[in-house]
Amino acid sequence: MKKFINKVDNILTESLSGFASAHRDLVTFQLDPNYLTRAQKAQNKVAIISGGGSGHEPLHAGYIGYGMLDAACPGQVFTSPTPDQMLAAAESVHADKGVLFIVKNYAGDVMNFEMASEMLPFEHATVLTSDDCAVVNSTYTTGRRGVAGTVIVEKCVGSLAETGADLASCKALGNKVNLRTSSIGVALTSCTVPAAGRATFDIAETELEMGVGIHGEPGRKREQMREADAIVNDCVQAIVTDFKAKNLATNQEALLLVNGFGATPLMELYLIYHSAAKLLAAQGICITRSLVGNYTTALDMAGASITVCLLDDEIKQHWDSPVHTPALRWGR
Amino acid sequence: MKKFINKVDNILTESLSGFASAHRDLVTFQLDPNYLTRAQKAQNKVAIISGGGSGHEPLHAGYIGYGMLDAACPGQVFTSPTPDQMLAAAESVHADKGVLFIVKNYAGDVMNFEMASEMLPFEHATVLTSDDCAVVNSTYTTGRRGVAGTVIVEKCVGSLAETGADLASCKALGNKVNLRTSSIGVALTSCTVPAAGRATFDIAETELEMGVGIHGEPGRKREQMREADAIVNDCVQAIVTDFKAKNLATNQEALLLVNGFGATPLMELYLIYHSAAKLLAAQGICITRSLVGNYTTALDMAGASITVCLLDDEIKQHWDSPVHTPALRWGR
Repeated sequence: MKKFINKVDNILTESLSGFASAHRDLVTFQLDPNYLTRAQKAQNKVAIISGGGSGHEPLHAGYIGYGMLDAACPGQVFTSPTPDQMLAAAESVHADKGVLFIVKNYAGDVMNFEMASEMLPFEHATVLTSDDCAVVNSTYTTGRRGVAGTVIVEKCVGSLAETGADLASCKALGNKVNLRTSSIGVALTSCTVPAAGRATFDIAETELEMGVGIHGEPGRKREQMREADAIVNDCVQAIVTDFKAKNLATNQEALLLVNGFGATPLMELYLIYHSAAKLLAAQGICITRSLVGNYTTALDMAGASITVCLLDDEIKQHWDSPVHTPALRWGR
Repeated sequence: MKKFINKVDNILTESLSGFASAHRDLVTFQLDPNYLTRAQKAQNKVAIISGGGSGHEPLHAGYIGYGMLDAACPGQVFTSPTPDQMLAAAESVHADKGVLFIVKNYAGDVMNFEMASEMLPFEHATVLTSDDCAVVNSTYTTGRRGVAGTVIVEKCVGSLAETGADLASCKALGNKVNLRTSSIGVALTSCTVPAAGRATFDIAETELEMGVGIHGEPGRKREQMREADAIVNDCVQAIVTDFKAKNLATNQEALLLVNGFGATPLMELYLIYHSAAKLLAAQGICITRSLVGNYTTALDMAGASITVCLLDDEIKQHWDSPVHTPALRWGR
């Protein structure tokens, strides 16, 4: 394992300290329990809080700021944060309109956010994201996994919360975006968890893992490596099949997120985008919003995921609205 | 070689097509000769054009837009663009105040931009970037290499040009920023050029290349892998020594850019930032501006570079000013 680290035990604290220092105009980092909040507390809005295991940067702390999250709770690498982190974050950012947790559907995260919810002395709700259409039930989940589509949920819900909307409306929009969003990932290499010191899984130079999870957990199938268009086509078919299974019409506008897992160059991500947009158009899905880059990573895994969110006027409005965070910034 | 590609010969066209499609509100891609421009031509300003071999994305096309470049000319991977690309780009974006080429100091780029300059029928000038303090003269250069500091030059010159400043002023600011900027990179792995199909260089699991170039060309020394703080300390010392050799006072404010080469996770880049900011502070350099991420990459190389730009009021003003490009966006 070759990584830019000092002691394995200190990676998270050192990295988050660097993050908070580099973005001190936007975020503040609290230690013990660990959580990050906006540098300036927002008022008169539902507090939007997310969190989960680290190793998926910029998820979630990179999305703290105007128009998106109020706070994020980072666990250790690929490990759920604990309820005390969530409680401390909620108490810090709560602004009298309740707290909405946005939680990726992994057993540990779900359990810990539930425990925190039960202890919260004020109004609260949870949106569980489950956009990964690759598998139902997996290494760490009952039901589908929440992956890169979570970024779209956080963006839209964050935008709505900024308008002063109430908790129920924020939760409803989160659930709608999650329903209309489908993702699938492909790994070309494993990732290496620092505390383990070795690759999470073995994969041959001629193979890919179709439907991989963002912790390197198994997907649908170990397959032979092939041309990008063929790989992307399988991803697009999986997503379109998922929409159809949900009775969602696919002849509409959509947002296309091509997400790198950490070690895949932007040149390849844009090539995937090119291929996916063409294949989606052939299915009647017209891409009118785009995001390409490393937005939900899996440490140093080479690979990428494709996420499609079927747009409607409300989702478009909240996707396009101003956002000012370390990792997403536009419109102001 | 495992990459998301179809045919090696088509990578660049497919990737640039995806890029232009994903960012069609900002950029337009012209084929044969290949160049990219702003979607809406700017008027009454010096046209700022950059270019170079591909494989360093988002450099340079990712920096096209308000407050930065007017056009970019992408060569094949790690290969200079040709004079006809530069001429076509210049003719397309020229707006009666002349053209400024921003060129990283590599022999092929310098030669081709010079040839284009000689054929240009209007006022023009060139800023050569040479921020890499690792080595003087190297595989592809006479003199120092231009690396990630080029992003800072492009941002500041782009900002000044937007004010209607003349060609000489833009060139002078570019030269000043270049002089006050110093970078050094470290590779943990090689990159793989698609057309070659194999790693550019061999490096053991216990080694790093200190001072590596952004094409995988040799740096100062092959060294034993060690803790991040020790690696970063050597980088910071190299940069401070460079500033001193240039008679630049180091007890001042600076911008710190921690740049990933393509396969290094954000978690590690922020850890490097944390380490570098502390070590620079100990040298009297106070970091007041920051940029952390993949801004000048080397395909799929694992590694990172550290860039420090010594600020003054003029550079701060132009760094902070609004920018609206695919890869850098703030302030409007």
